[in-house]
Amino acid sequence: MRALVKPAAGPGLEIRTVPVPAPGPGEVLVRVRAGGICGTDLHIEGWDPWAASRMHPPRIIGHEFCGTVVKVGPDVHDVAVGDFISGESHVSCGRCHLCRRGEPHICEALQIIGVDRDGAFAEYVTLPAQNAWRMPAKTPVDVAAVMDPFGNAVHTALATDLGTRSVIVMGCGPIGLCAILIARRTGAIPVVAVDVNPYRLRLARRMGADHVLDARSTDIPKAVRGLTDGAGADVLLEFSGNAQGLRAGLGALRNGGFGALLGLPGRPVELDLANDVIFKEVRLHGIFGRRLWETWYEATALLASGLDIRPVITHRLPMRRFAEAFALMRSGKCGKVILTMEDGARS
Amino acid sequence: MRALVKPAAGPGLEIRTVPVPAPGPGEVLVRVRAGGICGTDLHIEGWDPWAASRMHPPRIIGHEFCGTVVKVGPDVHDVAVGDFISGESHVSCGRCHLCRRGEPHICEALQIIGVDRDGAFAEYVTLPAQNAWRMPAKTPVDVAAVMDPFGNAVHTALATDLGTRSVIVMGCGPIGLCAILIARRTGAIPVVAVDVNPYRLRLARRMGADHVLDARSTDIPKAVRGLTDGAGADVLLEFSGNAQGLRAGLGALRNGGFGALLGLPGRPVELDLANDVIFKEVRLHGIFGRRLWETWYEATALLASGLDIRPVITHRLPMRRFAEAFALMRSGKCGKVILTMEDGARS
Amino acid sequence: MRALVKPAAGPGLEIRTVPVPAPGPGEVLVRVRAGGICGTDLHIEGWDPWAASRMHPPRIIGHEFCGTVVKVGPDVHDVAVGDFISGESHVSCGRCHLCRRGEPHICEALQIIGVDRDGAFAEYVTLPAQNAWRMPAKTPVDVAAVMDPFGNAVHTALATDLGTRSVIVMGCGPIGLCAILIARRTGAIPVVAVDVNPYRLRLARRMGADHVLDARSTDIPKAVRGLTDGAGADVLLEFSGNAQGLRAGLGALRNGGFGALLGLPGRPVELDLANDVIFKEVRLHGIFGRRLWETWYEATALLASGLDIRPVITHRLPMRRFAEAFALMRSGKCGKVILTMEDGARS
Amino acid sequence: MRALVKPAAGPGLEIRTVPVPAPGPGEVLVRVRAGGICGTDLHIEGWDPWAASRMHPPRIIGHEFCGTVVKVGPDVHDVAVGDFISGESHVSCGRCHLCRRGEPHICEALQIIGVDRDGAFAEYVTLPAQNAWRMPAKTPVDVAAVMDPFGNAVHTALATDLGTRSVIVMGCGPIGLCAILIARRTGAIPVVAVDVNPYRLRLARRMGADHVLDARSTDIPKAVRGLTDGAGADVLLEFSGNAQGLRAGLGALRNGGFGALLGLPGRPVELDLANDVIFKEVRLHGIFGRRLWETWYEATALLASGLDIRPVITHRLPMRRFAEAFALMRSGKCGKVILTMEDGARS
Repeated sequence: MRALVKPAAGPGLEIRTVPVPAPGPGEVLVRVRAGGICGTDLHIEGWDPWAASRMHPPRIIGHEFCGTVVKVGPDVHDVAVGDFISGESHVSCGRCHLCRRGEPHICEALQIIGVDRDGAFAEYVTLPAQNAWRMPAKTPVDVAAVMDPFGNAVHTALATDLGTRSVIVMGCGPIGLCAILIARRTGAIPVVAVDVNPYRLRLARRMGADHVLDARSTDIPKAVRGLTDGAGADVLLEFSGNAQGLRAGLGALRNGGFGALLGLPGRPVELDLANDVIFKEVRLHGIFGRRLWETWYEATALLASGLDIRPVITHRLPMRRFAEAFALMRSGKCGKVILTMEDGARS
Repeated sequence: MRALVKPAAGPGLEIRTVPVPAPGPGEVLVRVRAGGICGTDLHIEGWDPWAASRMHPPRIIGHEFCGTVVKVGPDVHDVAVGDFISGESHVSCGRCHLCRRGEPHICEALQIIGVDRDGAFAEYVTLPAQNAWRMPAKTPVDVAAVMDPFGNAVHTALATDLGTRSVIVMGCGPIGLCAILIARRTGAIPVVAVDVNPYRLRLARRMGADHVLDARSTDIPKAVRGLTDGAGADVLLEFSGNAQGLRAGLGALRNGGFGALLGLPGRPVELDLANDVIFKEVRLHGIFGRRLWETWYEATALLASGLDIRPVITHRLPMRRFAEAFALMRSGKCGKVILTMEDGARS
Repeated sequence: MRALVKPAAGPGLEIRTVPVPAPGPGEVLVRVRAGGICGTDLHIEGWDPWAASRMHPPRIIGHEFCGTVVKVGPDVHDVAVGDFISGESHVSCGRCHLCRRGEPHICEALQIIGVDRDGAFAEYVTLPAQNAWRMPAKTPVDVAAVMDPFGNAVHTALATDLGTRSVIVMGCGPIGLCAILIARRTGAIPVVAVDVNPYRLRLARRMGADHVLDARSTDIPKAVRGLTDGAGADVLLEFSGNAQGLRAGLGALRNGGFGALLGLPGRPVELDLANDVIFKEVRLHGIFGRRLWETWYEATALLASGLDIRPVITHRLPMRRFAEAFALMRSGKCGKVILTMEDGARS
Repeated sequence: MRALVKPAAGPGLEIRTVPVPAPGPGEVLVRVRAGGICGTDLHIEGWDPWAASRMHPPRIIGHEFCGTVVKVGPDVHDVAVGDFISGESHVSCGRCHLCRRGEPHICEALQIIGVDRDGAFAEYVTLPAQNAWRMPAKTPVDVAAVMDPFGNAVHTALATDLGTRSVIVMGCGPIGLCAILIARRTGAIPVVAVDVNPYRLRLARRMGADHVLDARSTDIPKAVRGLTDGAGADVLLEFSGNAQGLRAGLGALRNGGFGALLGLPGRPVELDLANDVIFKEVRLHGIFGRRLWETWYEATALLASGLDIRPVITHRLPMRRFAEAFALMRSGKCGKVILTMEDGARS
């Protein structure tokens, strides 16, 4: 089969022909229909320090995806050949104390598909049956392909009750854009979106953010206070992973505010803990991945109720044009970019 | 009356003779019996940037204290002449949205006794009647004098449920020492105390910490994992306000751990948010002052049940020897230092 | 002035001419514009055992209302003559341990306007200034008149996070109808409304309930399981106060479900605690009044964001036609019934 | 092997000789060392309506036990031959929505050892490897035998934070007695124990309850208010399953109090929801089994820290004397009664 591979330590990716994998016990083999490119994939392509410290090439990449189950290994229940599934990229061990305590999403021995085991930018991929979430057959392929980042948004946005809360969405990449939709749907009043990229600010407005602020030209804490009777926001949903974004977001929270932090800073960040967290009694929750499997139930309910995340997806290319897709991602002039396997891999 | 005064902008304090204040509406006049010296008092004495930006001398300092009500102003209920009271140093406005929402301890117009209005290192002090917490008459004067910092410890330690949780107490000054006692009393298993000061490490052991670690010579994250079956601690109670202490404490938390942050860093702190908070889904809560008045009920219950904080108090001097007391505080060779007004101020 | 009065122990009400009251310290005098009739008012009119045990006639009744401040007593801040206000009917003491702990809505010495002190079915009423919630001047009078029961709905609906949760609204009187709106606005998926009254079932549908079930002809637990993939509902919002309604609602909850109970049963209720609560680990929270003042901030935010509760209000009569209004209430063929004072009282 | 068997529908038990079972995939075979008799076993012996509706004889009973692993089936990890284990009696399916949401203890397809599959009052028992909790080898056999009911107490007592809270333990059978120990250990102030059985009231006192009340001669709500400055208790831990006990416990809670309900009423219970739950905003949480596996981690931590539950265990008989043991249980003149298999079953 054709697969997008990190061939060796160092920058770059290439399409290779490799054997179709076989599902082991408890695993399924999935014919991939489409995948989403994640910021992590860019880090892998560029071989940043995190990638260099964690990955062992050669490795097929890609961890946001959907497809059809074509074969099941031994001891597989609840998933069958023909099922249309979306992949959960985090594979928990089921045996560590965190898995046993009901927190498998922060498993101590977590493996990530497309990082620690072969990924889904390929015609076929294997994954544990429990990581194959069955989707209604009518779900658009593009939506099913990005349940993993949509799930990040769900996990972050539902980390605290948003009903009647004033909410800042800091960072309007695909996950932040989904969070705008979710915050609106779950009663945030108002939703204030912040970014520095005009393309994404336009998308944020399209998603229905009540206010859209350009951090390049706006004093965010001051502007947010202006939008909240002088109080500051109740909630910060932080997706930027950017030091200035973090500080602006924290500065814009009210006393007693809450921050859910998903965006990953690439290096340590200097924070004014005394003024921005301690004096204000701000609560900050780190957010990782998706709760297994509450987040999937929640994401499924949101889609079933009519939440439409398709406007977040701005581009769709066949896998063979991956270089173009990655360049587009780096340009910032996009929402989510989808790679399609059906025509792409097989062309 | 005699009072310890910050006479003008700049370092230094002096004892002056000033008029006895009169209680306004809703206020009481208290004859002070004893007060505790807080780290904040050192900042005021030394006139650090925070003090310079906030205070308007001349000002009588001192905000941890107890005494006897000798006069009540108009519209005072529930407190009467003769009551033995401990002072809550934070005066909330009762009118801002936070006061109205039941969070007066993070009031937007908070005033601090001894900072924003005249304090208690004096023969007499006035304060709002609601800030005068009645103590059982048999309470030791030294204990009643330090309910305010004891309350900091209560608020921090009870910010999450400690029953069966492994707990790090980072920083063993008077508040941290109280937190050791409270954590033990509320079921923490084990309590791990950390400091860099041998005097305070000895006190920590005396308070009953299960393990006492010297951060100068110990890799704290590694040592804590060794004490917790490799998992890391469930809870960090952070009192050091020190960047290295914070990082060591966060590094020692388990995935899904919780940190209550009371210690005030003097400047912005560089944190590895990605590895220490986000990947681990750590929750951090800023802690300020005392919940008004849950913390006081809780502190009262702890004392009534026999919790003995007297070993935290290591020194007791008359107010006229304040210079000696402040020097002792700066040396670090002490727990809580008490100034007595009865003999001191009047000698 | 003209006022609707419970003249003596026993059934009945009458309109009397009484002196205009004077505001005491901390109180305001309000010219009443409109009031809502509550189920409690029916109990008072009919003189049920609760009314007989609590009230001391003569007493002006009425506790849901809005009006304009025409005079302020001494020591009033933050409310001024000319302010358009909605009344909070629960007057807390500010001094008991619950008030001091930030839970004044369950104050131990709570007084209710129109029950324990004179009420608002009158040309004028006095109330503590803190109970006078300022409304934007453009708020429709009918909406401002029913902030108190709307607040009941807000407090109940926001007792747990409804985002993506399946929710049963049991009982579709005015408060239940408001709860349907709020549950939809804060992301409940789906909202299932239940009642036995066809008039109210029609209103429930009009409010946007996803499913409307008639408990006279429907096995509620079975029907709800059918609407929730067999699981049962995540959340019960109970407004019926009816034993059968309670049991049906509890029976329809999933394992681990949550119930917020506002409806007041008139007598003890037999519950199958083992099967409906304990085996299922159901959590039940009693709900009383409105959180002071979080609920008011939340209710204000909902209205400001465009939530329209006017369809809940189905009738509007001048106060002099109170007998007709009460009869309408007893018939059940209504949503909220408003009494207007402006033309009514002065006609 | 010898086993204690419910031979057929109807009252009674008998010791039979049956084949030693073989462990299936994922299961272990355990040589039983000791077991605890539970109230449920009495219901099974007496064949009450619950037993009649659920059980399918013949069935070996017994679900509280410990023993040594002597054989492991295929696909068993983390448990090995020779391990000393305590059994978790609730076997969750791992596949339903509750298991997938991290709440396997309220699994929709839960099976109970000794009820739905053969139990542990026998020389050997099989159970899923994940239900075999490894105990430190030095744990007293009697303690390891009753981790299951001790876990009930842990799950109930830790359902809310007990630090500084006033706590009622209603019902002083073995689980209530354990809860007294846990409440004290986790900072309850005070612990008030209630029962009607003088034998158990004496045990409650021995466990360290601060106050012991005999419900036969005491007005519980009044007495509890007397012990809590008139407020009522913060927390009710309900183990009696008795209607009068429940009502007394709820009546003794303060406004805003919390109740954890574990005791199973044998029939529907009439509760004064309006006065005891709704007006007071009481929160009630049904409690079932043990959280899998947080409760086991918590129970293990408590034992490791020195909590000694041995005084709860008052009698120890060989299995062949089961009739005597059951009679003792029915008399109420006991704490926990242990059946030993080693000498008993093999005598």
